[in-house]
Amino acid sequence: MAKSTVTPQTLKGFRDILPEKMRIRNYVLNIFKGVFESFGFEPLETPSLEYATTLLGKYGEEADRLVYRFKDRGGREVAMPYDLTVPVSKVLAMYQNKIPLPFKRYQIQRVWRAEKPQKGRYREILQCDVDIFGVASPLADAEIIAVIYNVLGKLGFKKFTTRINSRQALFKMLENADLPEKMWLTTLQTLDKIDRKGNASVKNELTEKGLSEEKAAGIISYWTALKPQENDESLVEIENYLKLLGVDQNSYKFDPTLVRGLDYYTGPIFETVVEKPKIGSITGGGRYDRLIAQLGGPETPATGTTIGLDRICDVISELGLLEKELEPAAQALITIFSPELLGESIKLTNQLRAEGVNINLYPDPETRLDKQLKYADRGGIPYAIILGPQEIEKGQATIKNMETGEQLLVPTDNIHQEIEK
Amino acid sequence: MAKSTVTPQTLKGFRDILPEKMRIRNYVLNIFKGVFESFGFEPLETPSLEYATTLLGKYGEEADRLVYRFKDRGGREVAMPYDLTVPVSKVLAMYQNKIPLPFKRYQIQRVWRAEKPQKGRYREILQCDVDIFGVASPLADAEIIAVIYNVLGKLGFKKFTTRINSRQALFKMLENADLPEKMWLTTLQTLDKIDRKGNASVKNELTEKGLSEEKAAGIISYWTALKPQENDESLVEIENYLKLLGVDQNSYKFDPTLVRGLDYYTGPIFETVVEKPKIGSITGGGRYDRLIAQLGGPETPATGTTIGLDRICDVISELGLLEKELEPAAQALITIFSPELLGESIKLTNQLRAEGVNINLYPDPETRLDKQLKYADRGGIPYAIILGPQEIEKGQATIKNMETGEQLLVPTDNIHQEIEK
Repeated sequence: MAKSTVTPQTLKGFRDILPEKMRIRNYVLNIFKGVFESFGFEPLETPSLEYATTLLGKYGEEADRLVYRFKDRGGREVAMPYDLTVPVSKVLAMYQNKIPLPFKRYQIQRVWRAEKPQKGRYREILQCDVDIFGVASPLADAEIIAVIYNVLGKLGFKKFTTRINSRQALFKMLENADLPEKMWLTTLQTLDKIDRKGNASVKNELTEKGLSEEKAAGIISYWTALKPQENDESLVEIENYLKLLGVDQNSYKFDPTLVRGLDYYTGPIFETVVEKPKIGSITGGGRYDRLIAQLGGPETPATGTTIGLDRICDVISELGLLEKELEPAAQALITIFSPELLGESIKLTNQLRAEGVNINLYPDPETRLDKQLKYADRGGIPYAIILGPQEIEKGQATIKNMETGEQLLVPTDNIHQEIEK
Repeated sequence: MAKSTVTPQTLKGFRDILPEKMRIRNYVLNIFKGVFESFGFEPLETPSLEYATTLLGKYGEEADRLVYRFKDRGGREVAMPYDLTVPVSKVLAMYQNKIPLPFKRYQIQRVWRAEKPQKGRYREILQCDVDIFGVASPLADAEIIAVIYNVLGKLGFKKFTTRINSRQALFKMLENADLPEKMWLTTLQTLDKIDRKGNASVKNELTEKGLSEEKAAGIISYWTALKPQENDESLVEIENYLKLLGVDQNSYKFDPTLVRGLDYYTGPIFETVVEKPKIGSITGGGRYDRLIAQLGGPETPATGTTIGLDRICDVISELGLLEKELEPAAQALITIFSPELLGESIKLTNQLRAEGVNINLYPDPETRLDKQLKYADRGGIPYAIILGPQEIEKGQATIKNMETGEQLLVPTDNIHQEIEK
């Protein structure tokens, strides 16, 4: 096989995640899972390919266009999930008898969106969702917001605001503005762009969708003046529950201009912006009481949120929010002094692994010792252990602290304690 | 939105994994990760879509035909990984400067194979790989086999055998049989089918590939009589290292008839069959020293294995190999006695969550208490906590052990200890 002339490449918007980034990801994921489980949420997974008909027609036209889809070998139209809400709703539609309601589940999986790749925006995203199924009570919505509050607090974010609004309030506003029902969702999709595109552009898009200039301007002004809690009483209940659940009143606000892009929301909606450090929107969710029925299941109320893991991982280390330095799996590298003494290094490796210490045995007996030590240093392994003829004779080993350079001669039976210190 | 007439469906060969199965999966994964990290392996992830040219032409024709591939919106030919070996080799080809060698990595991700779905065979598989890059020494191969030995031992499997052979030994055998080099891989692919299809069918396929009857018969008999260690000395070294690494000599054997299906193997190859309980082949791997160069990187020796998580999860609970019963995330359900007393239930929920107890607060204040208790029972939640007016007055709560039915009246400050007992 000749050396190929190919240049290896990863697709744009996709990522190879090397160990250093994986450590951050696992640290963040453990915090997520810890909070999810402390609230009694259970893990669940769904496939990375679904029938295209399952996924499409739920998100709205603009999102549908970003779904990766193709025909498989059996001629089936298949698609890769754009989010986890539709797949889990399919599960609820399929397995009603196996899943006792209320059902609280979390789900941490990849989703795919064929967006224009740009800094911090990926085509393959690790999505973390928590949802409660089978509960119409706003207590469920409040619990979701409490999960967000606890996750972001545990991660060390100092200031964030969960904006809360309600699709019911927005629909009522559009109804009061005499807009026909079939125009509601498309109008909301346009309004949702106001932050990015500005008033004029949104007004323009509304008139392109068939609204008169006057009605477009009217809707924009009704919308921004809306009092969500007056139009949807469940928001008042959510506020009461949030207080009871110990959610800091400065961490949320009712905001009429929150719209959320996806079609499937039917009730309260929420989105969290982290202001300190300034990293923008990192959660999005809401109530979607009709989706499971739309997928062929029984009417089942549902509410939940996504928490954006990728953005958090991207910023957490720069922001100094890591509690401790994240170390590699190996607590020590056991070096090989010479091929003849390999047996001794392996013996010590077996002993320490059995004692519960993570040991990287240098896997090549022919490599010079200085190169092995350099390897421990470059890999951030905290200790290197050296077993030369003198150490072996005395039943000892040299432990080198790779950060300070300090070396200690220690009886092999005490290495364990020395490293765990 | 009217109730749809769709019947929700999951694609054949794909799975929705409900919480009960997820618990088993997480239990097994924790054992995998624990062993991988005790050997100093580091986590890594690669995308779920790659350029088709990256993946194809490495596995062999038959596997290539099973790769999910399509043209994306940008007209790029893309494909979903068939395994993790080729994607990680791409990473080694791309990031040589960022990854100090030797590099020990583990990777746990989904891969996809458009195989005929059948019992226990899926189109979406969770693959668990460990590999060592940058080491030509057979010590690396021995460490991989030691990882397998430790993982399967920790899982509780009583009898398993890692079959070990060598592509070098097989190639030498074919060379001695005067077979031209371009016929080697395709001949091995046919020989690999002998277990499933039998001698006659394999001989037939070899003659169809252009071998004379006589040569086909000759190769089959040379092959089964081969002494792998005589044809590849690195196997002798592997055996020595396995002894040093404490791998039980009854857990492996050198077997000339092991071939492995994929093209990319170049040296020692290994595969593990679990005999007790009888679940068949659950690991496969070997050395692939040319793959990284084939992908455009520098020549980099590499060896590793896959351990089949799915099959293990499928059998582990039926076989009674679970150390303990796997409980749901929630340690207790806090019930809501009546809507008026909800505040007390929430207060206790906050307190216990802060004390580190995983609490499922029943999320609907309007549900009757007996229905809430039935829910705890059905979900396998160990305790239900009841806060009625009498309990509240005394600063106590009733804890119901859902398994025994026993009820205890406990001061709210002691619930924590009572549940952790």
